[in-house]
Amino acid sequence: MNNTQTIAASQEKILELANQLAKEFSKTAVKRDREGGTPLHERNLLRKSGLLALPIPKEYGGYGAGWPIVFKVVNIIAKADSSLAHLLGYHYLTVCSTFLFGSTKQYKTFYKETASQQLFWGNAFNPRDSGLKAVRENGRLMLSGSKSFCSGATDSDRLLVSAQEEGSDEVLLCVLPTHRAGIVTEDNWDGFGQRQTDSGSVKFEDVIVYEEEILYKAAEEQKVFPTVRTHLAQLMLTHLLYGIAQGALEESKAYVKAHTKPWISSDVEAAEQDPYIIQQYGEMSLNLHACSALIEKAVAEFDHAWKKEDALTKQQRGESGVAIALAKTFTVKTVLHITSTIFDGMGARATSDQYKFDRYWRNARTISLHDPIAYKLRDIGKWCLSSELPPITPYS
Amino acid sequence: MNNTQTIAASQEKILELANQLAKEFSKTAVKRDREGGTPLHERNLLRKSGLLALPIPKEYGGYGAGWPIVFKVVNIIAKADSSLAHLLGYHYLTVCSTFLFGSTKQYKTFYKETASQQLFWGNAFNPRDSGLKAVRENGRLMLSGSKSFCSGATDSDRLLVSAQEEGSDEVLLCVLPTHRAGIVTEDNWDGFGQRQTDSGSVKFEDVIVYEEEILYKAAEEQKVFPTVRTHLAQLMLTHLLYGIAQGALEESKAYVKAHTKPWISSDVEAAEQDPYIIQQYGEMSLNLHACSALIEKAVAEFDHAWKKEDALTKQQRGESGVAIALAKTFTVKTVLHITSTIFDGMGARATSDQYKFDRYWRNARTISLHDPIAYKLRDIGKWCLSSELPPITPYS
Amino acid sequence: MNNTQTIAASQEKILELANQLAKEFSKTAVKRDREGGTPLHERNLLRKSGLLALPIPKEYGGYGAGWPIVFKVVNIIAKADSSLAHLLGYHYLTVCSTFLFGSTKQYKTFYKETASQQLFWGNAFNPRDSGLKAVRENGRLMLSGSKSFCSGATDSDRLLVSAQEEGSDEVLLCVLPTHRAGIVTEDNWDGFGQRQTDSGSVKFEDVIVYEEEILYKAAEEQKVFPTVRTHLAQLMLTHLLYGIAQGALEESKAYVKAHTKPWISSDVEAAEQDPYIIQQYGEMSLNLHACSALIEKAVAEFDHAWKKEDALTKQQRGESGVAIALAKTFTVKTVLHITSTIFDGMGARATSDQYKFDRYWRNARTISLHDPIAYKLRDIGKWCLSSELPPITPYS
Amino acid sequence: MNNTQTIAASQEKILELANQLAKEFSKTAVKRDREGGTPLHERNLLRKSGLLALPIPKEYGGYGAGWPIVFKVVNIIAKADSSLAHLLGYHYLTVCSTFLFGSTKQYKTFYKETASQQLFWGNAFNPRDSGLKAVRENGRLMLSGSKSFCSGATDSDRLLVSAQEEGSDEVLLCVLPTHRAGIVTEDNWDGFGQRQTDSGSVKFEDVIVYEEEILYKAAEEQKVFPTVRTHLAQLMLTHLLYGIAQGALEESKAYVKAHTKPWISSDVEAAEQDPYIIQQYGEMSLNLHACSALIEKAVAEFDHAWKKEDALTKQQRGESGVAIALAKTFTVKTVLHITSTIFDGMGARATSDQYKFDRYWRNARTISLHDPIAYKLRDIGKWCLSSELPPITPYS
Repeated sequence: MNNTQTIAASQEKILELANQLAKEFSKTAVKRDREGGTPLHERNLLRKSGLLALPIPKEYGGYGAGWPIVFKVVNIIAKADSSLAHLLGYHYLTVCSTFLFGSTKQYKTFYKETASQQLFWGNAFNPRDSGLKAVRENGRLMLSGSKSFCSGATDSDRLLVSAQEEGSDEVLLCVLPTHRAGIVTEDNWDGFGQRQTDSGSVKFEDVIVYEEEILYKAAEEQKVFPTVRTHLAQLMLTHLLYGIAQGALEESKAYVKAHTKPWISSDVEAAEQDPYIIQQYGEMSLNLHACSALIEKAVAEFDHAWKKEDALTKQQRGESGVAIALAKTFTVKTVLHITSTIFDGMGARATSDQYKFDRYWRNARTISLHDPIAYKLRDIGKWCLSSELPPITPYS
Repeated sequence: MNNTQTIAASQEKILELANQLAKEFSKTAVKRDREGGTPLHERNLLRKSGLLALPIPKEYGGYGAGWPIVFKVVNIIAKADSSLAHLLGYHYLTVCSTFLFGSTKQYKTFYKETASQQLFWGNAFNPRDSGLKAVRENGRLMLSGSKSFCSGATDSDRLLVSAQEEGSDEVLLCVLPTHRAGIVTEDNWDGFGQRQTDSGSVKFEDVIVYEEEILYKAAEEQKVFPTVRTHLAQLMLTHLLYGIAQGALEESKAYVKAHTKPWISSDVEAAEQDPYIIQQYGEMSLNLHACSALIEKAVAEFDHAWKKEDALTKQQRGESGVAIALAKTFTVKTVLHITSTIFDGMGARATSDQYKFDRYWRNARTISLHDPIAYKLRDIGKWCLSSELPPITPYS
Repeated sequence: MNNTQTIAASQEKILELANQLAKEFSKTAVKRDREGGTPLHERNLLRKSGLLALPIPKEYGGYGAGWPIVFKVVNIIAKADSSLAHLLGYHYLTVCSTFLFGSTKQYKTFYKETASQQLFWGNAFNPRDSGLKAVRENGRLMLSGSKSFCSGATDSDRLLVSAQEEGSDEVLLCVLPTHRAGIVTEDNWDGFGQRQTDSGSVKFEDVIVYEEEILYKAAEEQKVFPTVRTHLAQLMLTHLLYGIAQGALEESKAYVKAHTKPWISSDVEAAEQDPYIIQQYGEMSLNLHACSALIEKAVAEFDHAWKKEDALTKQQRGESGVAIALAKTFTVKTVLHITSTIFDGMGARATSDQYKFDRYWRNARTISLHDPIAYKLRDIGKWCLSSELPPITPYS
Repeated sequence: MNNTQTIAASQEKILELANQLAKEFSKTAVKRDREGGTPLHERNLLRKSGLLALPIPKEYGGYGAGWPIVFKVVNIIAKADSSLAHLLGYHYLTVCSTFLFGSTKQYKTFYKETASQQLFWGNAFNPRDSGLKAVRENGRLMLSGSKSFCSGATDSDRLLVSAQEEGSDEVLLCVLPTHRAGIVTEDNWDGFGQRQTDSGSVKFEDVIVYEEEILYKAAEEQKVFPTVRTHLAQLMLTHLLYGIAQGALEESKAYVKAHTKPWISSDVEAAEQDPYIIQQYGEMSLNLHACSALIEKAVAEFDHAWKKEDALTKQQRGESGVAIALAKTFTVKTVLHITSTIFDGMGARATSDQYKFDRYWRNARTISLHDPIAYKLRDIGKWCLSSELPPITPYS
């Protein structure tokens, strides 16, 4: 095998592995949506699979997979269970943030230990929550307060943490072991969707932060590259939403063909021959294909921007951001449409709690509120009308 | 007071009573959505209120309220709790079906006992379920089998039952005391919405039916008037859906004003000044007003048709049916739009399970699947394009 | 006949008259859309019909028709030819503006001469065009400059004129005979729609204005009632748009039934049996009925507000304005949808210039740009969300 | 330069050439939309440019451009003038049909003479019109009758003709010189859009057809490859529609920035800062990008299928057809939305006939009626729901 073939073969194996996990997860997805809480068993399956090291370069013990493959893996899991995909996606986001914000020494260390110990990373980064304060006392940096919407914090091994530096406007970014004294992950996530993402809060009581845990680039304003973290986060969310739409469509098709009776005044012999049900699937499929095509382009642009590293210009970052905004916005519209419309074809009996088909809408509606698409549309419109790049924010 | 004033005063009192009950119900609506099951306490409040006798003429002990008032009461309850409104609406539907299908003697009896004893009626009528058979043995009529989607059967006092007559295509309609030997209401309703409607199944094991319990008009094909039962059912559902949309809008407005923070790049000081949130409420309000206007017209047409009784022609029935199809279709579209869109303004924290704001969508999605609006649109389209009246079916 | 019967009979006669004119106008609507310019023959038919005096009270020589009838007449003409309806509607708007802005003596004079001589009024009022200046020289008021979008000015007998007073922010409102020396109606209206509305510009060269021609109330800021002129204008436009939608739907239905061949893979025998064409008409009819219901409510509210005259409060004015905004916004959406969608059912051959079916879209698109519905939606949204009344402007 | 560079350089030159022509055409597009008729001057510019030989292999004297480049050229012209792009696209479609339906000798001959003499081809192929009959008399084949919707026939040098063989169900396909005795192109195209496409009818009076002009493969039912002519036609139309949408968006943006005044109650200083106008461009841009992404995929699939020639299977043809249906359907929706929505931002003055901005909608509406997208959606839906390939027809 030449090099290209080797890569292809390795990619195929990764996707196969993801598909196997997805199949396993899908068996209990309904049950776990009902229960909520932390999916310990499934998190451990992810740990054992080796997939936590997917984007980590081979030299540090990982698979060295590029973003297109990483997103595909997240998407495959999302089709089966968008909570688990959320945990996995945020793991990738947080561990790879060290490449954006850390020194070479730092990210190498984090990458190596993550790959060798299959560490699971969680998030304590919410940019809109200023409840966590960093104070320097006697030359030591201490964190106190709390952070909300900390996806994946429970049962994690490392946390990416942002805190407000006392007496300054600066945000401090650091990586801490979740088991550090004073850190308490609270079991208080109660969203009606994404029920196993542990997106509750984390409390910090006089938590020590060591110098080598601080990611200094976060505060360097002149750098463009670290700001693509936003794009990475947006693309993760987009792949979750796209996976939900795909999963909902597939499961509904199977249901229509297996269970739905043709409507009494339809004059057809099977529900799948109903002209209006066919039309509904035509519309859903059309939009889903448009998502797919827009996502593919956005991923390619992002991958290109990522590879530029510090050579990335504001213009390039902005254009890549517009491509991502397009993909995200279209996907949000599509997934909300699909997760509601599938019921029209399936009919009344599909509302039975045994199927939990409503979880698709609940999950989609929850993720889609991460940041308002009205402002994504504004970014797109300003770019279209006035060639104005999206502002650099934690959401764009 | 003259007669018109008396009626107005009495209507005002009824609406006030309904509003008081709605207020009471709304306190526990979230809790009861979580629990599901039978709302015994609330059903008894409805019994005590006297509202079960609302459409029953005064001469038989009721309030003698016309349909416009009855629908308004159902709508008021639906804004607060669409499950309870469902139970009440189906009570009205089933008890008044005896006026359509029964002899004068029959409906007088049913009306009188319902008013004097505050009987609660339930449904065992699902026209698409042929699982209940009526057999004549030794001159006695016996029912055996089961019926699904029996809204309000649990804790009811009377059931309106449809069964398949053995050896014939005929459908037998009868009214039975729910406590009749052999009738078992099964606690198996598990819809993700309308969770306290007890829309599970009822089992019948060799249940005797007496001659005076059989409603014979149901089988008389030449009669037009009894077929407006479909219209009555469709209007009940429409008022439930309309109430859900209103309730969702109101509660979301209060939330936006009390809790939603302005978006970071919005340049406004309060969420309610956000141009895109204002626009979302503009769209929702626009559609809700269109619902209101279409429903008002449909109710007037139905009321007119109802008052014609046996003089009602097929043409009049059809035209009234088109008006109802218009109101229903528009309301289904609107309620699905509103119950999903409210979250865009409220933002991510509104997905917390403490609010159960998702119940609006779950309730709306569940009711809206009673029968497909694609076929309501077809009825409207055929009428518009070819002046073809909707076919007379249990759904149109 | 009692009084109510007399009124009904008289209304019926008016509507019959309007229908006859509409029938006559429809014969040449295609030809006149092609030609543009001033419809002299049709304007004279309107003069002869007596309909120019429709809203003028009987005591001044008119029909004394209320606004509901006046709007219906405009709507009937609009179904056949929205340009002619535009001229008629703006005639009513301008002549009745004297009741809002003029003294009792003034409007009586204008009403009487209009009724007795069948005067046709035109507009030179565009509030966004400050190109016309009023100067006082030697005690005489003179107008110089020009005014754009002067619907119906050509061939008119009277003009309602607004001008900027030199050296002040005040707007001067007056009524002038179109034939006054110095007034030149320019034949420069070249819109792609509403092609016979003569909405071009009017030039004024040292045009004398006499004291009795000035409407002073326009400048009295504390008065609420005169500001309902905006509502009157918005309702006129709404009835034009509604008429266009109705006309387009009706003509397209006739075409589909007479000419459209069933699609080759449709498996139906006639185009009107095509499930997707039926659905399109279902959607169009649904929206058109919602328009109708919202318009009816808006007209009732406006009529109520109008009758209050100087007792009208800001709150009442605002609420009536919201009702009108709802009707207008929904109608704009609907007419744009219908005038484009009709072609899907009719098919490719319906694009032939012989039919000029595109005129419906061109006319609708032109009128609908009078003021942006995005701001109507904003008004509705602010009212819904924050109980904020629409601002008092020439457009709301 | 290596080979890849040569190709890239040559492609760049072609696109530059197309852009130059587009620029030239755009200068008179408004004027020619007004006039209609045959664009002789522009057809001759196309002849002189050499672009008529674009897809013809180099060995036969052409450019040897692949379909992706050919479609791009059509798209570039369509942005400036969709009528001229229509003529060019149908030229490519008809000349390349000889590769699908003709013998090797035939297409070589046609390719060579087209390239060397810059022949312009026209269409007389409408599959739904059976008005042209082929009769064999004394061993000679004669055509009599007429054919409608013959895009580009006037001023053409060759015609691709389909006729009904007398006494059989077979369709005869042939290529005739437009100047053959008995052929009369009628100047009767009067569509309200695509006004310079000469899509009128062609009359045939005892027109002789020689053996070598008959394309025999058309009648061979077992062949899959020739049936991709449908796909080629659909992609041509899609690129016309896409170009119209792009052209409309670009021209409207320039207008908004140059001419539109901010709305009186908008509180912004320039129209392009209006939050609702920005949103409108956001929506339009979003949909346009989705078109672009779907079209790119469809072109790649078609190119792949085309290169397979006789090895193409029904399955591959079908899947490529679905990709094309997706692109076409989305583009039709988008172009109708954009060509109507641009006016909301531009405002009332943009309806002036001097701009003819309505031509975008008229052109889009006309092309989009070639075949109903309801049936494209049905094809997509059947494929999605039941893996049923689109039927092989002249439209799918």
